[in-house]
Amino acid sequence: MMTRNPPSQAGSTQAPPSAHDQATRRNGGSLAGRTIAILATDGVEEVELTDPMAALRQAGARTLLVSPAKGEIQAMEADVHPTNRYHVDMQASAAHAAEFDGLLLPGGTTSPDHLRMDHDAVRFVREFVQAGKPIAAICHGPWTLIDAQGVSGHTLTSWPSLRADLTNAGGHWVDRPVVTDGMLVTSRNPGDLGVFCPAIVALFAAAPAPARHGHVA
Amino acid sequence: MMTRNPPSQAGSTQAPPSAHDQATRRNGGSLAGRTIAILATDGVEEVELTDPMAALRQAGARTLLVSPAKGEIQAMEADVHPTNRYHVDMQASAAHAAEFDGLLLPGGTTSPDHLRMDHDAVRFVREFVQAGKPIAAICHGPWTLIDAQGVSGHTLTSWPSLRADLTNAGGHWVDRPVVTDGMLVTSRNPGDLGVFCPAIVALFAAAPAPARHGHVA
Repeated sequence: MMTRNPPSQAGSTQAPPSAHDQATRRNGGSLAGRTIAILATDGVEEVELTDPMAALRQAGARTLLVSPAKGEIQAMEADVHPTNRYHVDMQASAAHAAEFDGLLLPGGTTSPDHLRMDHDAVRFVREFVQAGKPIAAICHGPWTLIDAQGVSGHTLTSWPSLRADLTNAGGHWVDRPVVTDGMLVTSRNPGDLGVFCPAIVALFAAAPAPARHGHVA
Repeated sequence: MMTRNPPSQAGSTQAPPSAHDQATRRNGGSLAGRTIAILATDGVEEVELTDPMAALRQAGARTLLVSPAKGEIQAMEADVHPTNRYHVDMQASAAHAAEFDGLLLPGGTTSPDHLRMDHDAVRFVREFVQAGKPIAAICHGPWTLIDAQGVSGHTLTSWPSLRADLTNAGGHWVDRPVVTDGMLVTSRNPGDLGVFCPAIVALFAAAPAPARHGHVA
């Protein structure tokens, strides 16, 4: 599996798999056989990309970085301090929810601001919403859900600047470290990653059976 | 007037007043005697701060940079390239619309994202809305209007990522270089500054009589 889904090598800060990680993979973690899309672009808050990705992989999932950008994306710390660059595994224009078991939307202010303007990125997210597939979003990540019509009727949280936008989109915004509402898990900021990561593993593990494999190159 | 309202010196790119500018000031431009607040913080898109400020001053207005930040703010180009720093003339906590004749909201993705979370900044904008005083906003600037309840019922434009948020807030979003709707003028991006600047001068000049002078230190 790893040869078909190499970790992002360009400046990746990910440590090699630990003995525990390798054991989990051998034994099949709670997400074994599942493929999760991480949708982001330039400006993604690095730790909101890397921490959930590590947690998902440790639980046995395969993850693919999907983006409107080609080649690599530039991650940031606190929006304005460039950190590492990450390899894009699949163009948003070629990505379809039918080939994934779940979606992760990391934050960073400018990443979702760009995603919202990209027709394919919004269409990709909307496919998860319409199919009832699990979605996890943190910080500014939920912005893209507004354009994908994935907010109305949901209880959720976010970075506080999004409160009015999510409320106006029909969401019930609450100020809690992590909120699970049906197939949607949300958190507020990088400080919530310690509870967000276990919650998204639980979300994706509880979702219906894995998608067909082999469709994702 | 200049001694009470020094231009932002810290790395300012503003040129000294031209002969035409000085003549306008002597003769009283269309904004002579008016004081305009420019509300921004770190991350403001530099040209959306400096071009309108220059146009307002050339028309005879006094401008004050109001911010939740103390001391100086860091301007950016395209969100991630730091440019110059600008002196903050007044803290948002001390600013009241009653002492100004109009408000300018520049863009840059992270500046309004921060302003929306600041109680005083939102209260300050809401005072302009409630008093029916003129407001100009460009690019991501209109975001703060959502939290200040200044969007509902208005026809306006913005950076395209805000379209859903402004529509959900009750606005009628259109894709035009500049939109004047009552006491609100909006534009989409730095490329619209050539039509935005004359429109905001006209907006502020057409508004009712200047506020009381001498109240702003």
